[in-house]
Amino acid sequence: MSKAVVLLSGGLDSATVLAIARTEGFDCYALSFDYGQRHRCELDSARQVASAQGAVEHRIIQLGLGDIGGSALTDSRIAVPHESTEGIPVTYVPARNTVFLSIALGWAEVLAASDIFVGVNAVDYSGYPDCRPEFIAAFETLANVATRAGVEGSRFHIRAPLIELSKADIIRCGMGLGVDYSLTVSCYDPDPKGLACGACDACRLRVAGFSDAGVPDPTAYQT
Amino acid sequence: MSKAVVLLSGGLDSATVLAIARTEGFDCYALSFDYGQRHRCELDSARQVASAQGAVEHRIIQLGLGDIGGSALTDSRIAVPHESTEGIPVTYVPARNTVFLSIALGWAEVLAASDIFVGVNAVDYSGYPDCRPEFIAAFETLANVATRAGVEGSRFHIRAPLIELSKADIIRCGMGLGVDYSLTVSCYDPDPKGLACGACDACRLRVAGFSDAGVPDPTAYQT
Repeated sequence: MSKAVVLLSGGLDSATVLAIARTEGFDCYALSFDYGQRHRCELDSARQVASAQGAVEHRIIQLGLGDIGGSALTDSRIAVPHESTEGIPVTYVPARNTVFLSIALGWAEVLAASDIFVGVNAVDYSGYPDCRPEFIAAFETLANVATRAGVEGSRFHIRAPLIELSKADIIRCGMGLGVDYSLTVSCYDPDPKGLACGACDACRLRVAGFSDAGVPDPTAYQT
Repeated sequence: MSKAVVLLSGGLDSATVLAIARTEGFDCYALSFDYGQRHRCELDSARQVASAQGAVEHRIIQLGLGDIGGSALTDSRIAVPHESTEGIPVTYVPARNTVFLSIALGWAEVLAASDIFVGVNAVDYSGYPDCRPEFIAAFETLANVATRAGVEGSRFHIRAPLIELSKADIIRCGMGLGVDYSLTVSCYDPDPKGLACGACDACRLRVAGFSDAGVPDPTAYQT
């Protein structure tokens, strides 16, 4: 079996991506980050999703992105907006997907895995620059000069199977593959019990996605 | 003054790069990583170099690369070779420069710094794939689609001023700019007192560089 590294946040999208990678026949090595995120409870979801979907291994890497801040997700002094905003929102974490994919690339090289899966989406998304197809293409080019692959002639593939799907299509796809979305969390601003706020960008996209897909939303929201 | 983020390992090359960036007139923000490296004592050198050369700030980011291993520098079970080896050596840390530059990119975005300096060198080096000019070019392309810059039209410049210099030329350049090389360490395999082994790749390149430059080597080697 071929090996793949799968970035797993504990959210809806990456849980779906893990199911897709498994369905394609990969031995999946799930990778999460404890990066100073406000919604750190997502790591418990990531553990449960990795286990439920048969990842061979799940690693959580410590990463001090809180020390550079600059985002509502990594700096507690910046509030998470509970309504739609213009332009790139303050929940954007500078270079986050570049950093996550870079560490995934390092692990893929150690494992001799050829494929790296990431759940970015450029349809029902927050407008983050590092979720766009041109970002994925540029990272794949980089991956193949940054590593032994660049010298020895093998290739890495950066796989973003959700990038052109709507949130409703992602949910329909995942339901078809048996994903248990009750294990996942999307909220950027959960309460101390881990209940979703229902109002941040991530919650609004999730709520609309379940509604559009005609699938009951299993999320526990704050009342 | 323009701002620059400067990757600072505590070694000879990055100390020289910091001096070059200062000479070019940048306000320099030095960035180091506590990444599970065997030669963690380099962080003390990085602190001293940042201070001696007037960095505006110096941050050390926690980064669990030891959890993916795959290198003599991050896995204590793999020995550092004390002689020259064929091909890419086991001291290569998979995707390390990609990860370091990615985090530097995130900090540059937070600071509104346009330039990121890195001390890679493709002449007197260990053959690491992520020290080559094509890697730097690919990373610069990525940086400008991965960030707000990609959406808003500003640009990041990845600066590798040493990339085509010999080690002797780097030392001559740094001496001319007042770099105190006695503060720097290059060794991959120092003893518990921090004394350099004199035999690993990094030490051999350093010894030869000082010799070729006709400059006394201030390094404290194990006897």
